[in-house]
Amino acid sequence: MANFGGHAIPGSFFLIYGFWLTVKHILQHYWRKNQLKGRQVLPPLFKRMEYFEGGFTIFASFVGIMVEQFVVDGPHAHLYDYENDTWVKLMNWQHSTMYLFFLIFGIALVASTASKMLPVGIDRLALSMALFVEGFLFYYHVHSRPPLDAHIHSLLLVAVFSGSASTMLEVFIRDNIILELLRSCLFILQGSWFYQIGFVLYPLSGPEWDLKLHDNIMFVTMCFCWHLAVALLLVVCTSSVVWLTLTRFSGKRRDIEIGMRNTSLKTSSQKALLEESDEE
Amino acid sequence: MANFGGHAIPGSFFLIYGFWLTVKHILQHYWRKNQLKGRQVLPPLFKRMEYFEGGFTIFASFVGIMVEQFVVDGPHAHLYDYENDTWVKLMNWQHSTMYLFFLIFGIALVASTASKMLPVGIDRLALSMALFVEGFLFYYHVHSRPPLDAHIHSLLLVAVFSGSASTMLEVFIRDNIILELLRSCLFILQGSWFYQIGFVLYPLSGPEWDLKLHDNIMFVTMCFCWHLAVALLLVVCTSSVVWLTLTRFSGKRRDIEIGMRNTSLKTSSQKALLEESDEE
Amino acid sequence: MANFGGHAIPGSFFLIYGFWLTVKHILQHYWRKNQLKGRQVLPPLFKRMEYFEGGFTIFASFVGIMVEQFVVDGPHAHLYDYENDTWVKLMNWQHSTMYLFFLIFGIALVASTASKMLPVGIDRLALSMALFVEGFLFYYHVHSRPPLDAHIHSLLLVAVFSGSASTMLEVFIRDNIILELLRSCLFILQGSWFYQIGFVLYPLSGPEWDLKLHDNIMFVTMCFCWHLAVALLLVVCTSSVVWLTLTRFSGKRRDIEIGMRNTSLKTSSQKALLEESDEE
Amino acid sequence: MANFGGHAIPGSFFLIYGFWLTVKHILQHYWRKNQLKGRQVLPPLFKRMEYFEGGFTIFASFVGIMVEQFVVDGPHAHLYDYENDTWVKLMNWQHSTMYLFFLIFGIALVASTASKMLPVGIDRLALSMALFVEGFLFYYHVHSRPPLDAHIHSLLLVAVFSGSASTMLEVFIRDNIILELLRSCLFILQGSWFYQIGFVLYPLSGPEWDLKLHDNIMFVTMCFCWHLAVALLLVVCTSSVVWLTLTRFSGKRRDIEIGMRNTSLKTSSQKALLEESDEE
Repeated sequence: MANFGGHAIPGSFFLIYGFWLTVKHILQHYWRKNQLKGRQVLPPLFKRMEYFEGGFTIFASFVGIMVEQFVVDGPHAHLYDYENDTWVKLMNWQHSTMYLFFLIFGIALVASTASKMLPVGIDRLALSMALFVEGFLFYYHVHSRPPLDAHIHSLLLVAVFSGSASTMLEVFIRDNIILELLRSCLFILQGSWFYQIGFVLYPLSGPEWDLKLHDNIMFVTMCFCWHLAVALLLVVCTSSVVWLTLTRFSGKRRDIEIGMRNTSLKTSSQKALLEESDEE
Repeated sequence: MANFGGHAIPGSFFLIYGFWLTVKHILQHYWRKNQLKGRQVLPPLFKRMEYFEGGFTIFASFVGIMVEQFVVDGPHAHLYDYENDTWVKLMNWQHSTMYLFFLIFGIALVASTASKMLPVGIDRLALSMALFVEGFLFYYHVHSRPPLDAHIHSLLLVAVFSGSASTMLEVFIRDNIILELLRSCLFILQGSWFYQIGFVLYPLSGPEWDLKLHDNIMFVTMCFCWHLAVALLLVVCTSSVVWLTLTRFSGKRRDIEIGMRNTSLKTSSQKALLEESDEE
Repeated sequence: MANFGGHAIPGSFFLIYGFWLTVKHILQHYWRKNQLKGRQVLPPLFKRMEYFEGGFTIFASFVGIMVEQFVVDGPHAHLYDYENDTWVKLMNWQHSTMYLFFLIFGIALVASTASKMLPVGIDRLALSMALFVEGFLFYYHVHSRPPLDAHIHSLLLVAVFSGSASTMLEVFIRDNIILELLRSCLFILQGSWFYQIGFVLYPLSGPEWDLKLHDNIMFVTMCFCWHLAVALLLVVCTSSVVWLTLTRFSGKRRDIEIGMRNTSLKTSSQKALLEESDEE
Repeated sequence: MANFGGHAIPGSFFLIYGFWLTVKHILQHYWRKNQLKGRQVLPPLFKRMEYFEGGFTIFASFVGIMVEQFVVDGPHAHLYDYENDTWVKLMNWQHSTMYLFFLIFGIALVASTASKMLPVGIDRLALSMALFVEGFLFYYHVHSRPPLDAHIHSLLLVAVFSGSASTMLEVFIRDNIILELLRSCLFILQGSWFYQIGFVLYPLSGPEWDLKLHDNIMFVTMCFCWHLAVALLLVVCTSSVVWLTLTRFSGKRRDIEIGMRNTSLKTSSQKALLEESDEE
């Protein structure tokens, strides 16, 4: 949808999803680190989180497809206009196709959480494919547009294809917190860049951008790096807040539960934690 | 062969091969999962399947080479026409070359199944090479054709080179069900896309496609993604049917064989299976 | 900064950093090799080295940003000139952005040295990103320049992106001395190539280079390979000197400390060392 | 050197080197397979082979550099002609640079064989770099030549860069016979393709090739695949001959040495071998 809203809506989803991933993976990482001491209380929460994530993805993708199809000037599920011999609203059909693959990812996530029969990593493969298809369609999307328009979209592809590649790596390298946070970071980057595209192509106020000026292209390239830096900062801050909350929370609970035995336990558990991180 | 049949025949082969691979790898995966309990009854079947696959590949590739050479308007094994100073039917020679590498794959598969001396993974290397050569020749095939024709063939290359890369990965990462099913999926995609190329370039009925219209290119790009989605769906459905049949079949046999001891065994074997999939 | 000094300054930093990395990684490698015998005396030195490296990187990057911003003809922290409707000194802003990512690397290095909570490898990811951003900005930097200018900068990209890729590999493959020295080598190459760019584009003496002559491009390509050969030579020499010094030094210390028990110990420790390198 | 001989000489070297590698790696593979039974008689031979390979590479590269420099119409170690303000015989200098990196590989191979101090894999890194530099220089070599000339050289690059990539992989994946034979195969392919380039560009007899005819380009592309098929065949035949000779030879020696105990030993050793290949 060629207006500011049409870029802000997917942008918001990707931004929120990036933050959600950061929180989820930090929780999982915290649990993995402390798992060795025999406590296995968190898993039901994790399963519920995966179900929620999968269910929400399915719901949002389905709504996305419906909106693209049945919006006022949409194709209304018509693909070919036999009277005028033209394709009907191919742009909306392309967006529907992108949503379709996120829908598939949602189903894969729910299914792989529900059943132990499915091979581990199938959800990551589906997500990697969804990102690949998004980038693939965008790539042929931007042909024969004004230079700045084409450039700003091709920068989006850097985030999308990097995300696809790093997610594909996760099929083979499981439970690697760096890859997981990199993925979160790339989703936040993608989300904030959608907003940037909206601001540049459909400015809310102020003058239009000159789509052919070389200086604008230079600025936009640099601006993409700033978005990356901000995305890194946001992931680091969110991670730190979640991690510190977890440490304080689990520390408090232990205080109440175990009382006096706390002091000695704490020291030994910290030592164990240090040794674990050494071994990693 | 520049007609609908010339695209439908390889398309059918790739489609059938994709399904065959899905069934084979699900069988192998089922056996690997249940292997730990000491049952090793399936291997003779697996060996026979590999011999059949290899033998059929050799036979089909050989027939393919013969047909390309000795078809009525074929080169009849002549490469250079010294009278007119021209190459004879280079297109047929290129197709023969593609078949030759699938022939090599067939031989590698039969040989590596027959002898324990050959290094594990040589069949995957040969398959990866066959796909690489197919893509390599197609890549230089499509030069200086009308835009839609070139584009629809270059989309085929996405499936071919992805297949080559994922098969190459299997040389190093063995017995990974995700990679194996991805390969099946990419073969099905390739097969169905051959049909699509046939339908677009040599329509059986209805008007010709305008090979220069940009909208047609946009549709075809999107259509490729739909083929991928359908290929995924087909692999998932086939896998599920095979897996469920296996579970029911092996359950029944056990019922008859072991009778009363069944109940306790089943529970413990299911537990073991769950633990295995956890460890994976 | 478009003069000789503007290329010599970053060049010097990269050169020195390359040598520093060589020395650091050889020290770490020596310690890893001899670690099995229970001696763990070096680590405090290593930590101090990491703090120094991180601190210096932060300091130098900060100074770099300040200089680029507040130099006489710099942007003085102004991004957009609303009077003339133009961007202010985008070149300086781009350089500042590059420094920013090296600043982030410095912070990541200090933080991951200070705290065991941070996942191992986060410093390498940050370095890989800093190099990627450097290459990314340079890539769009060189558009529409004379052929030799564009070519000599694109050769720089070979060193930068290779460095980024090999550093990214180190996130997953830890403590591999070959990758570590390759990184050192690519930094030295990058540093010396910055000097070469300076000599070609802003010759200190002698005639100007013809920026359109094809022979000049051919020479520069070959010259890049010579720089690579020299960088390899420098890494090998530095490594050998450091390694031999370490062997002699630790041999001497042991002589004094253990006196007569030395001879037998030496033999067995050498044997252990040989076995370790066999197992590697 | 722009004549048939100038392509036949490096071609012969690469061909012979490919065969040498095949024999060497099959010998090593045979020894690895039979190593578990405690026999360690072959290593001195292996070391001598590595010294010979390294020494010969150093010698041949040195001769290559000297010939390129001091041939009648060579640069005689002059790089710049200050009188005419031109570079002197850059082509010869480029070839010398290629040889220089093979010289470095030779030194790395000898050094890593001689000393256990050097990290394992340094020789593969050096070989990968030598191939990369060869491809890198060829890449900028072929600009602005007639289409067929450019195309036939760019096909050479496929062999060279594939070789560089697969050799780089060997730095991390050691003792993998598939990668080792793939390397041998790519050297044979490179060697035979050098001959093909010679035959096409400087035909010994018959008419000149039309360097602009599209059919010639199509034929040459296909011809490259045939060379690959032949290279595969040659590697397989050489490997089989060496392997069978080894089996027969070591069988005979055992017959004489151990006499009657042979029968039982053979069975158990075959069993062990089968188990090894299973585990692989």
